[in-house]
Amino acid sequence: MWFGPRVAERDVAVVGIGQTAFSKGLGISEAEVAHRAISAALDDAGLARGDVDGLCLYDIESNTVPEVARLLGLESVRFFATHSHGGGSYCALVRSGVAALREGHARVVVAFRARNRGRRSSFGPTIAQGGRPWEKIAPRIAGHYQYQVPFGIQSPVQEMALIARRHMLDHGTTEDHLGEVAVAIRSHAVRNPNAVMREPMTLADHHASRWVSEPLRLLDCCIETDGGCALVMTTAERARDCPQPPAWVLATAQALGPAHHRPTDWFRHDRRRWVTAGARALWAAAGVRPDDVDAAMVYDHFTPMVLLALEDWGFCGDGESGAFVERGGIRWPDGRLPVNTHGGQLSEAFIHGFNNLLEAVRQIRGTSTCQVPDAKLAFVASAASDPGGAVLLAR
Amino acid sequence: MWFGPRVAERDVAVVGIGQTAFSKGLGISEAEVAHRAISAALDDAGLARGDVDGLCLYDIESNTVPEVARLLGLESVRFFATHSHGGGSYCALVRSGVAALREGHARVVVAFRARNRGRRSSFGPTIAQGGRPWEKIAPRIAGHYQYQVPFGIQSPVQEMALIARRHMLDHGTTEDHLGEVAVAIRSHAVRNPNAVMREPMTLADHHASRWVSEPLRLLDCCIETDGGCALVMTTAERARDCPQPPAWVLATAQALGPAHHRPTDWFRHDRRRWVTAGARALWAAAGVRPDDVDAAMVYDHFTPMVLLALEDWGFCGDGESGAFVERGGIRWPDGRLPVNTHGGQLSEAFIHGFNNLLEAVRQIRGTSTCQVPDAKLAFVASAASDPGGAVLLAR
Repeated sequence: MWFGPRVAERDVAVVGIGQTAFSKGLGISEAEVAHRAISAALDDAGLARGDVDGLCLYDIESNTVPEVARLLGLESVRFFATHSHGGGSYCALVRSGVAALREGHARVVVAFRARNRGRRSSFGPTIAQGGRPWEKIAPRIAGHYQYQVPFGIQSPVQEMALIARRHMLDHGTTEDHLGEVAVAIRSHAVRNPNAVMREPMTLADHHASRWVSEPLRLLDCCIETDGGCALVMTTAERARDCPQPPAWVLATAQALGPAHHRPTDWFRHDRRRWVTAGARALWAAAGVRPDDVDAAMVYDHFTPMVLLALEDWGFCGDGESGAFVERGGIRWPDGRLPVNTHGGQLSEAFIHGFNNLLEAVRQIRGTSTCQVPDAKLAFVASAASDPGGAVLLAR
Repeated sequence: MWFGPRVAERDVAVVGIGQTAFSKGLGISEAEVAHRAISAALDDAGLARGDVDGLCLYDIESNTVPEVARLLGLESVRFFATHSHGGGSYCALVRSGVAALREGHARVVVAFRARNRGRRSSFGPTIAQGGRPWEKIAPRIAGHYQYQVPFGIQSPVQEMALIARRHMLDHGTTEDHLGEVAVAIRSHAVRNPNAVMREPMTLADHHASRWVSEPLRLLDCCIETDGGCALVMTTAERARDCPQPPAWVLATAQALGPAHHRPTDWFRHDRRRWVTAGARALWAAAGVRPDDVDAAMVYDHFTPMVLLALEDWGFCGDGESGAFVERGGIRWPDGRLPVNTHGGQLSEAFIHGFNNLLEAVRQIRGTSTCQVPDAKLAFVASAASDPGGAVLLAR
């Protein structure tokens, strides 16, 4: 491992992970999903509820900080953060928790994502139960949506299709490259007993699946899942007393530029500008390089976003991700960089990325079902377009 | 000023503040409200848009991080946070921005609140344009609301009325005490040319105003306003080059316990437990005491919450806030602790508390229209029930 100008301090670690079963319909409330995942993570960490004084969650679920505090009977929460942007911000939950721990704002932070899609309609005025912006029925369409919804670009798959097509046109990326992302990640899920999608998949299966939004097929899209994932972070002093080997948070990043993934101005900007700034900050803070990473967990809500993430965070050159995956680069056990060794959002479960963090911890602990031997450094990220973010975990 | 075991570092400061006009209907979009407030704050700070790499906002407005980044043409945003809980979290915008600056996640952070209530209906499925939870029409009532809405407790005024009544029963707090909060804060607004409500008010005026939810009258409630407020924070190194005197962020806090203000379990818990923890952390981190504070800006969406905040954060003993305000304690210029010297949410404008932060900066700069002579320490907070938080600014 190369250590740059700065050796990152090992002062905050993930000491506990927990999850519920993943399924198409758990039949329990979103509060209960959170409760089970958090309880499992605290058990794993060897900590009690009374130890928790920090909470981080997504803003797209029905659970709120006060309700989770009440649910767990927390006596005093001194730090809490609610993050927007779904899978674009799952790494930000760790980032803000680490900052709070380093600042002394909290001593034990729980971060989680609980999803219970099965028990509510996917479209309709569901805000009181969480839900995503494009699901809302409103008397008028506001914000950037007014410029795209009337033209049929209503949901992420249609936005990502345009981005994928641009990558194909600019860089010669092919449907085979997209398919290889799905196939490689499925090959990892096959070994994971917790994965929802465990049937082996071939490139032919991928190509035979129906278009959802050309050039994206059904098997380019993540699944919809009920389930919850939680992790527990604490400071070095306390981490050393916890039963599990700590997964040290070496560095974190967020990245966003003037063009979000909205088609309204996506193609007017060179996204490399801000992507590069986020990546540079990450590697500089960590004191390591992309080549040092043993396994990567990348937000794979759609296959092309894996390609973009590999380029965004410096694992491939611009436009070279297609060739990288074609050479088997993301496959366990032989690829240069095994990606989503649990099955990711495409095949394990769609927990808005949060399950990626848990798999990175397992790689550091040596307990993955696709374990990279002697893994020392695990990378977690979403492409810097969503908006993006990253976390580096070290043994 | 007493310095405790730790002298807080002056490493992050508010270097710019800006606001729009406040009115009942600005007639511009919420995006434009944000744009004007942020532009004014950057001008005040002597910084350019290209300097901004961090953004903090509320999650109850139509503006989002990607849209504001695009609006301002920001090249690279490396830190962003969206905060829940409205006025309960306005201090948290500063808290997370300070953490990001100290962690090196950003160099210049803009935090803001933009409201444009006039241009949309107050009730209805308005989520795509922002809006608050109790305004939503949904096929079923979810979360804790299901236990209170059927009994007529639908909005904050009804919740706060119950809390106020409990304070009256427990501590002998009177309608005169509530009225004095409104009258004192209005007496400050009278001197502020930017305040929406500038007519002098007497205790008789207060008592003559109609019940909204007993024991709260119309003049116990904040106003509804369109308007935006923004502030710019940066590190010590850069702050010293900015044209305005820096308002150093001495310490921040968040506080939440197992009972939110929801009536479902409010009265089952002793809120002093977690309130005290938040306050203790604040004063310990700052190395000063409540007695050292020269002026306080307290979230006054309803008059009783000012009383609670004075007790929560240690300015009064438990149950003693009524007597404190009766003695003129919160009046400028003669009170022990002038509160909301701009007019607060009750009389200047309802910007979900954010205007309180700007007034605290003005007190530190010496530019308030109710200036406390030689003010060195300004306190900003919301009662630890909402959830709560606090910021201490120093000259």
